Amino acid sequence: MPEYNTPVRDIQFVLFEMLNAEQHYQSISAYQEINRELLSAVIDEAAKFADEVLAPLYQVGDKEGCTWTPEGVTTPTGFKEAYQQYVANGWPAMSEPEELGGQGLPHSFGGVINNEIVGTANWPWGMYPGLSHGAKVTLRTHGTEEQIQRYVPKMVEGAWTGTMCLTEAHCGTDLGLLRTKAEPNPDGSYNITGTKIFISAGDHDLSENIIHIVLARLPDAPEGTSGISLFVVPKFKVNDDGTIGERNNVNCGAIEHKMGINGSATCVLNFDGARGYLVGEPNRGLPAMFTFMNSARIGTAIQGLCTAERAFQGALEYARERLQMRSLSGPKNPEGIADPIIVHPNVRRMLLTQKAFAEGGRALMYWLGQHLDIAHSDQGDKSKASDDLLSFLTPIAKAFLTETGVEAANYGVQIFGGHGYIKEWGMEQIVRDGRIATIYEGTTGIQSIDLLGRKVLGSGGELLKNYTKIVHLFCKEHADNEAMQEFIEPLNAMNQEIGELTMQIGAAAMENPEEAGAASVDYLMYSGYFVLAHMWAWIAFTAIQALESDAAEADFYNAKLATARFYYQRLLPRTLAHKAAMLSGASNLMTLPEEHFEF
Amino acid sequence: MPEYNTPVRDIQFVLFEMLNAEQHYQSISAYQEINRELLSAVIDEAAKFADEVLAPLYQVGDKEGCTWTPEGVTTPTGFKEAYQQYVANGWPAMSEPEELGGQGLPHSFGGVINNEIVGTANWPWGMYPGLSHGAKVTLRTHGTEEQIQRYVPKMVEGAWTGTMCLTEAHCGTDLGLLRTKAEPNPDGSYNITGTKIFISAGDHDLSENIIHIVLARLPDAPEGTSGISLFVVPKFKVNDDGTIGERNNVNCGAIEHKMGINGSATCVLNFDGARGYLVGEPNRGLPAMFTFMNSARIGTAIQGLCTAERAFQGALEYARERLQMRSLSGPKNPEGIADPIIVHPNVRRMLLTQKAFAEGGRALMYWLGQHLDIAHSDQGDKSKASDDLLSFLTPIAKAFLTETGVEAANYGVQIFGGHGYIKEWGMEQIVRDGRIATIYEGTTGIQSIDLLGRKVLGSGGELLKNYTKIVHLFCKEHADNEAMQEFIEPLNAMNQEIGELTMQIGAAAMENPEEAGAASVDYLMYSGYFVLAHMWAWIAFTAIQALESDAAEADFYNAKLATARFYYQRLLPRTLAHKAAMLSGASNLMTLPEEHFEF
Repeated sequence: MPEYNTPVRDIQFVLFEMLNAEQHYQSISAYQEINRELLSAVIDEAAKFADEVLAPLYQVGDKEGCTWTPEGVTTPTGFKEAYQQYVANGWPAMSEPEELGGQGLPHSFGGVINNEIVGTANWPWGMYPGLSHGAKVTLRTHGTEEQIQRYVPKMVEGAWTGTMCLTEAHCGTDLGLLRTKAEPNPDGSYNITGTKIFISAGDHDLSENIIHIVLARLPDAPEGTSGISLFVVPKFKVNDDGTIGERNNVNCGAIEHKMGINGSATCVLNFDGARGYLVGEPNRGLPAMFTFMNSARIGTAIQGLCTAERAFQGALEYARERLQMRSLSGPKNPEGIADPIIVHPNVRRMLLTQKAFAEGGRALMYWLGQHLDIAHSDQGDKSKASDDLLSFLTPIAKAFLTETGVEAANYGVQIFGGHGYIKEWGMEQIVRDGRIATIYEGTTGIQSIDLLGRKVLGSGGELLKNYTKIVHLFCKEHADNEAMQEFIEPLNAMNQEIGELTMQIGAAAMENPEEAGAASVDYLMYSGYFVLAHMWAWIAFTAIQALESDAAEADFYNAKLATARFYYQRLLPRTLAHKAAMLSGASNLMTLPEEHFEF
Repeated sequence: MPEYNTPVRDIQFVLFEMLNAEQHYQSISAYQEINRELLSAVIDEAAKFADEVLAPLYQVGDKEGCTWTPEGVTTPTGFKEAYQQYVANGWPAMSEPEELGGQGLPHSFGGVINNEIVGTANWPWGMYPGLSHGAKVTLRTHGTEEQIQRYVPKMVEGAWTGTMCLTEAHCGTDLGLLRTKAEPNPDGSYNITGTKIFISAGDHDLSENIIHIVLARLPDAPEGTSGISLFVVPKFKVNDDGTIGERNNVNCGAIEHKMGINGSATCVLNFDGARGYLVGEPNRGLPAMFTFMNSARIGTAIQGLCTAERAFQGALEYARERLQMRSLSGPKNPEGIADPIIVHPNVRRMLLTQKAFAEGGRALMYWLGQHLDIAHSDQGDKSKASDDLLSFLTPIAKAFLTETGVEAANYGVQIFGGHGYIKEWGMEQIVRDGRIATIYEGTTGIQSIDLLGRKVLGSGGELLKNYTKIVHLFCKEHADNEAMQEFIEPLNAMNQEIGELTMQIGAAAMENPEEAGAASVDYLMYSGYFVLAHMWAWIAFTAIQALESDAAEADFYNAKLATARFYYQRLLPRTLAHKAAMLSGASNLMTLPEEHFEF
């Protein structure tokens, strides 16, 4: 397995140079004391932990997987010790509110540390604290004060972890079909009965207790999505003094054997009259769950860039070392038996694709992180604008970055050639682990319908316009900058075009709603390339500015410019194919009768 | 795991309706007695064996994998019994010459039966007889009469199998670097010493003996590719009377743990002064190996369509059964809890993509098979023309069908949602197994350089023109057919365009050879979509003809037309992206210095 190092310089570039994080945080009242020095020190610490503790367990976790017995799930060798160290270092508390025992660092910075840095080093391990974060946020947002005090501080500390229990065997996407029952007890609690599947971190040996957030139906609840309520169901009941009480009737019945993320336990959880407590209003579970869902989608989008970055680093190391054939333009390593394969244009094409997706994705996710901070900061219209922007960009980020992450991971295997296919070399694991990301937390198809149907057409185009206005201002700002024109011209053209395409599809969808579904995935992918073009133009501008003022790291900034050019010239033209496909109409999909797909 | 059935009707359609196999075979002297009745009976038998014996072992092979001990490799449960049945049924002998114990059926038909039908049911199992076929052909073509008589009849019978030993740890693509030595003995034999890796079927328990074809260097051989010779090295020495003698000094030192094709043993073979015999001329091993290589590339291209077909069948079954959400245009299954997911446009988009690649790929491979027959049939200019066509189309078929096969397999996982990621459901295995196909027998990058550099530019455009002439005639033939214009117009336009693109890239490559490398993969993918467009136009014509004359199976033929339309409207526009990328030039790939890819 190639060595892995957190890309600290790239993280700093996006955070401090492109996005002026210091200024951003200081504009939000809760974060006014945050400065670059502090953040840099935390990044360095996290990178050290990720590189030295988590990354070496990545392959171990895949090889061993988790082990199930009727007593529960055991995680792979080293996972528990790493988690103890993680807790001892205070990482779970980092971006949690101080009044619940947290350190009060910004949410967006939590994304950098606990999603990206942890996740690139070892995504399956990171899912344990990751799911816990989702459960924490849901309880904090929708729980009673008593519920918050009972569960959240222990989760902030990391002594307890949490899960989100949504899926059942017959329903994943379509949660309206779920059947798990919640029957009221005289004391105000509920007995929860049903079977949940695909519960990440549903059982394990890392923490003392596991707090499940469970979707279930009250008696007489309306059918469908408006009859779903949210419950908190601890693995061990919690006494009034906060100590751990007796075992609750929730048990892990099995773990799944999966394509990847083997270090992460994916559990079947049997709730057999387990004691649970209603969180929020009856029958309002699904809207409450969307608090979690949106943050989970952002977390999963980050998995896309983690996948691309991890594959890029491995492939780059190999491409520099592996000697095979000579350069088309004459030997570059005449003393060696052959040239390193990085001399070959096609190997560079694959490496640059990985790099463009990883670095462009990072820029997008950090930018979204800043808007998350603003959306949560109670700044009235400004917060509302950020929230609207997130509504539009979240499905794009989730689907586009995970799809391109899988592409990047596959290039990692491809650059290694036959060795890429062998487990020992570590590259095929990245493909298998990354592959789940286009599925969970809403598939690419679901994100696409959410984007085009619910967000864009559903808002009468408003949510799109909010974003194109931002791009318009960006283009206007750089209209006179000669050096930026190779980026601004195509970006500006697409900024017009996406509006026109949307109108065309919207008009067709008024006649026939299948038209929206038929266009949706190509529309999302088109939008993804467009948004990443915005990021790469912004990165290019940041680099150009730095080159004008600071010659010290010219190589670094020139590499950003070269990658921006690669992105615009080689990857952005993929929008041509998506445009043609999305305009081709629903009839080429809908005409063939179901029973004639095969004979 | 979804049920698998050999797509017999589709096979018959391409063979007998589109490609007039009966007429084709009867035009070749060796095959004049072949008729449709005979071929159909063989297809039915093979389908029965594939569906009932091989397909049920597909998942078993993945789960158990192969087992290595110092005594050798044991294949998964059932593999040996299936092989015995395969031999008892005479399948290994089917398309071998009668004088060597074969049944003399055409090579192209061998591809249908022993590659496609066997391989779709269970590709990893099929690799044992598959590699054996490559070794057989190499010996038949380049061995002495004595060598042929000693080894080949037993391999035709299936009692012995064979391998191809090329790769070493430090060289896969770049065989000029290989180090395995061959030292002459006084009796004319050689002692072979070296370590070969990635040897498929290098050791196993299916056959009594394994005949290795090995690339090695004679003492004083020139460096590089012109110093490589070919040897035959049996696992057990063969006595003059044809019986099995003592063990030779070739041993399996380990097997690889891979992403997929776990049922296929991928061996490290240690040759420790093993007794071997020169095959063909000294130092002419690499050209001799190309006999095998071309047929292996065609075999691997078929893996692409097998992968797409297998994933399509599984996904289709699930898409018809899985109930989730309602159709955008109103419930289609109002009595059920939800509609089957095949009502959703995006699910149909994925299914039709799989279908278009599988069926279009089948048409291409069967057409190439006919040209293989002609190329081998000693018909002078006609054979030469087929050989030239194969030179051009083989790298396209190999790379394009395997890349699109992987895409199709990933849609199989995607359509299953979370269940697709779980091993038990059988879909993720198809991705893992199919993934090797873009790597072995020359990666996509290598095929692309072979196509653009060696074949197209290397022939001064001749090999391309031979093909575009065929497409031109096809378009001319259908120029007055109103019903065909939706296909003929874009096909004809691309037929012009590919010539122009080639000239443009050729001119750039004269100035800078990196331009060819930089354009190569996009050029190949563009060519692949173009060639498949030719196939789909041909399929459409066949369907239109049938609809005009025979109403009995109108649904079947209308489905072909619907799929052709889908291909032209939804998939063919991808050429727009490949065109733009290939014309973007080498500088966006070559400018960034190697040491500045990361900081």
